[in-house]
Amino acid sequence: MKLLKERILKDGVVKAGGILKVDSFLNHQCDIQLYNEMGKEFRRLFPEEITKILTIEASGIGIACVAAQYFGVPVVFAKKSKSQNLDGALYTSVVHSFTYQKNFTITVSKKFISAADKVLIIDDFLANGQALLGLADILSQAGAQLVGAGIAIEKGFQEGGRKLRAMGVNVQSLAVIEAMDEKTILFAN
Amino acid sequence: MKLLKERILKDGVVKAGGILKVDSFLNHQCDIQLYNEMGKEFRRLFPEEITKILTIEASGIGIACVAAQYFGVPVVFAKKSKSQNLDGALYTSVVHSFTYQKNFTITVSKKFISAADKVLIIDDFLANGQALLGLADILSQAGAQLVGAGIAIEKGFQEGGRKLRAMGVNVQSLAVIEAMDEKTILFAN
Repeated sequence: MKLLKERILKDGVVKAGGILKVDSFLNHQCDIQLYNEMGKEFRRLFPEEITKILTIEASGIGIACVAAQYFGVPVVFAKKSKSQNLDGALYTSVVHSFTYQKNFTITVSKKFISAADKVLIIDDFLANGQALLGLADILSQAGAQLVGAGIAIEKGFQEGGRKLRAMGVNVQSLAVIEAMDEKTILFAN
Repeated sequence: MKLLKERILKDGVVKAGGILKVDSFLNHQCDIQLYNEMGKEFRRLFPEEITKILTIEASGIGIACVAAQYFGVPVVFAKKSKSQNLDGALYTSVVHSFTYQKNFTITVSKKFISAADKVLIIDDFLANGQALLGLADILSQAGAQLVGAGIAIEKGFQEGGRKLRAMGVNVQSLAVIEAMDEKTILFAN
């Protein structure tokens, strides 16, 4: 997606350790006009019947909620922390976060995903693929259909995308970064 | 707001300990059509010039991002956990969460809020007011103007709303609950 790639080149900052900071428009400050264009593009890429969008807190939520307007479906977001508000029957999956350097148990209430659902996963980043594998695991527990995964930025030089596509998941990333260093960001698509 | 109050009566569940579960439409599964109506109502309640919307992860993000479309401004969300992606100069404030029964340090990058900003805070719940006080503290550190706080559901029988209004904050809640038990939910407005 041209608009997103241009924005990454303009405002993205590559830091040591393979970190791409896009916090000025994607995951700390949120450019809602850009989110809308991304939502339209996700709809174009996934014309299939979708009944729910699934994402994970926190950065995926805004992107998923704006995109959901183009699908006319609710968003469910997996939670990373246990609150006393979360009760009843739950799907859970353990996810390792390289960003936070620890394991999370992600949780979705069984009330909100069923075997009848055709689900699109939306998230801001795909790198090692841990979060997406956890979400896919929850859909599998629910017997729901995973229609695909719409990702804003994929780090193509990390293994997540390859792993998920090898499992047969239809992964569509709006910008795939093939290589990057502090001076250059090179896109694969 | 009639639509939200009707939805709370239809789908809200009151649990022991003063907990109102609205996870089927507001803060786990998200009804995006409802979010849009809430966004329009926030714009009607805050016709002033707004340059940024500030919220806090996780449940505030979706509501704020959909509402932001009616204001034409970016959303900034305060973070609750430290990631290696968060660097540079930061505003921080300590917030006690009664839901999670612990203290959080909430964090906003100084890049995204300045003394020139006129900020609307948006969040899903106002109960004890801790999260809002933390966000207001960050705006005060930035020298930014706090135009007001737009809240989906205020627990009017807890002290947050009273405390913030006494500080002169223009708090507008779409539904204010005066009293509730497992059989009845009574609205103040």
